[in-house]
Amino acid sequence: MPLPTKTPLSDSLKQILKQGVDAIDTPALVVDIDAMMRNLSRMAEFAKKHDIRWRPHAKMHKSSALAKLQMQAGAVGVCVQKTAEAEAMVAGGVNDVYISNEVIAPHKLARVAALAHRLAADNGQLAIAVDSMEGIRRLAQAMNDARHAAGNAAVIDVFVEIDVGQGRCGVTPGRQAVDLAQEIRRHAALRFAGLQAYHGRAQHVRSAQERRDLISVVVQDVTFTRRLIEAEGIPVELVTGAGTGSMVCESASGVFGELQAGSFLFMDVDYALNERDPAQPHFEHALFVKSQVISTGLQHAVCDAGHKCHAIDSGLPRVVPLEDGAQLEYANGGDEHGILKPRDPAQRLARLGEIVWLVPGHCDPTVNLHNHMIGVAGGLKQGRVERIIRVDARGALT
Amino acid sequence: MPLPTKTPLSDSLKQILKQGVDAIDTPALVVDIDAMMRNLSRMAEFAKKHDIRWRPHAKMHKSSALAKLQMQAGAVGVCVQKTAEAEAMVAGGVNDVYISNEVIAPHKLARVAALAHRLAADNGQLAIAVDSMEGIRRLAQAMNDARHAAGNAAVIDVFVEIDVGQGRCGVTPGRQAVDLAQEIRRHAALRFAGLQAYHGRAQHVRSAQERRDLISVVVQDVTFTRRLIEAEGIPVELVTGAGTGSMVCESASGVFGELQAGSFLFMDVDYALNERDPAQPHFEHALFVKSQVISTGLQHAVCDAGHKCHAIDSGLPRVVPLEDGAQLEYANGGDEHGILKPRDPAQRLARLGEIVWLVPGHCDPTVNLHNHMIGVAGGLKQGRVERIIRVDARGALT
Repeated sequence: MPLPTKTPLSDSLKQILKQGVDAIDTPALVVDIDAMMRNLSRMAEFAKKHDIRWRPHAKMHKSSALAKLQMQAGAVGVCVQKTAEAEAMVAGGVNDVYISNEVIAPHKLARVAALAHRLAADNGQLAIAVDSMEGIRRLAQAMNDARHAAGNAAVIDVFVEIDVGQGRCGVTPGRQAVDLAQEIRRHAALRFAGLQAYHGRAQHVRSAQERRDLISVVVQDVTFTRRLIEAEGIPVELVTGAGTGSMVCESASGVFGELQAGSFLFMDVDYALNERDPAQPHFEHALFVKSQVISTGLQHAVCDAGHKCHAIDSGLPRVVPLEDGAQLEYANGGDEHGILKPRDPAQRLARLGEIVWLVPGHCDPTVNLHNHMIGVAGGLKQGRVERIIRVDARGALT
Repeated sequence: MPLPTKTPLSDSLKQILKQGVDAIDTPALVVDIDAMMRNLSRMAEFAKKHDIRWRPHAKMHKSSALAKLQMQAGAVGVCVQKTAEAEAMVAGGVNDVYISNEVIAPHKLARVAALAHRLAADNGQLAIAVDSMEGIRRLAQAMNDARHAAGNAAVIDVFVEIDVGQGRCGVTPGRQAVDLAQEIRRHAALRFAGLQAYHGRAQHVRSAQERRDLISVVVQDVTFTRRLIEAEGIPVELVTGAGTGSMVCESASGVFGELQAGSFLFMDVDYALNERDPAQPHFEHALFVKSQVISTGLQHAVCDAGHKCHAIDSGLPRVVPLEDGAQLEYANGGDEHGILKPRDPAQRLARLGEIVWLVPGHCDPTVNLHNHMIGVAGGLKQGRVERIIRVDARGALT
């Protein structure tokens, strides 16, 4: 199974390396490397302090380079949602990947199984989530088929996903999960690795107390299910889950052994609107869109960044205050434009040609719109282009 | 100035050519080629009947192959919103491109000017919109600089954009437009080509009568401005604008000479919600997301297509009725998932592994999420893969 190959950087991208931020064409996705590294350190410290593994979700940055950076900082590996994302991570040199999602199509399970064998032969490992008998049997079949092709006998870690309030994938906590764990153990190529329990909606509940309340229900669901499974003599080695919004709760639960939080690295507007739990490290905005004003009217200006450039599913971007402190509000101007108005009508408009920095509303789908992120060190407005970060799993949908 | 190069098709994509639709991995963006060709014929007929030029907007399909197909059917060229889109179109063999948007950055205007010279040397032509004195002067400077580099003296067509109700780019109809037209004529490398007048918001007003009312104001604004310019002895050769929602009004106006409608080719859910004007051709849905059910609960199913796969800025996708007529509603399941429930609670759920076809809410930003569209002929569910359509201007943001 051939893995995706990298396309070379274009000359125009190579030319901006080591240049000042002025050299970055607009619109562009820019990472404040210093802020990102501070976020990374704070996450590593937090996990160490709470003696919990962290496996950040690469669905957010879709970059094997950032995945490896996270593993150097102490992450045990990364999560992904898609088989194609896993392939891109492995092609980029990441050797410990967990597909925290269900895969049902036999030809896609064949890719999963091939990847598991490839990683096993390379001292790495692949894991996957399941929530149905049919899914387990198809996965086992694919693993057996791949063993014959690969010539080695890999085992894949399998987590049973329980629905802890998200209302999406996962079985109801309780008996069904026991049945699935038992089924997994009937197949030599599968290893029951534990429970997947992620409450996506809870991440964006604004009140810290309400998030704690929601996760306390999650913890009860997990505990109840784990006991049922263990009562059958089946050890539940690991419970994995949590996001940037709720991770302090899962960490303190004594039940979760692994955090999947991913957005902490970049922090978007949506997460910044959450009331911060006192136990949560301070994460800074590290992802920005550099944009330019291309038109001005009597009461508004128009910049060149619309929602083909930053995702608006979780709200509009926030505008970084201009050099002189002027504050702007961003309004939706469609696919290619943003409408900028002064927050206070007495303040000045943005000027024709002026550079405007935006903080995206939601980092995951924003990153997925770009082939590259431009890493700047030394400050967003005065810094230099330090590196080009490939989004090598961009568009990896299958 | 090097133009973007094409990456070769992957082996897995080549393998599905001439195969049945079952061979298409999910999620994938699929074009019903037969429906698309019918839409194209109806548009060509409509333009012929109303004796009006059409220059469809390639911001929608971002494909040079589809641009050329449209020109074979009678389109005079295409519109784009971005310089990088123009470059991708030219690299793909399209020789008549209009950037219906403002460009202000000098290095980007240098690219515009280089492209204008390249096209002029090749019997093609480039046009651009402006809405400021500064923009005109910078464009003229860039054209002069490029002339020295290119060794030929190209002239670029320049349209003055007036704001006819969208509240985005463009000057107020009237005197300002006259000033800009006069400024354009002071520069030998620029040719005043007419007026750009597009009312984006009017496209999605549901009532046909209300759209007519809005466009009648547009027509007054254009007529008033054109008279003022002509009173200065400056001919206004062409007024260009209109979208799929309002094109019957601009066509009937006697003022507009060119239609920019693009979405007619694919027709999304948002446009289908418009009350159809009796004069408007019937355009069919031709763009779909093929998706698969990967998880089922007691009251819902989950498919593998979330909003990294189809844009939700203009609403959620519609689900094509299942083989047995069962009707499903799509609810937002986040970046990678869609939640499917029966429209009528008495009807069956989607089954694990079942294929579900979605009609995207908004075609433009949906196409921009994909590297390829898979063209199917002979019916969406029983047909064969006829061609792979590259989205060669995908992510062309600058």
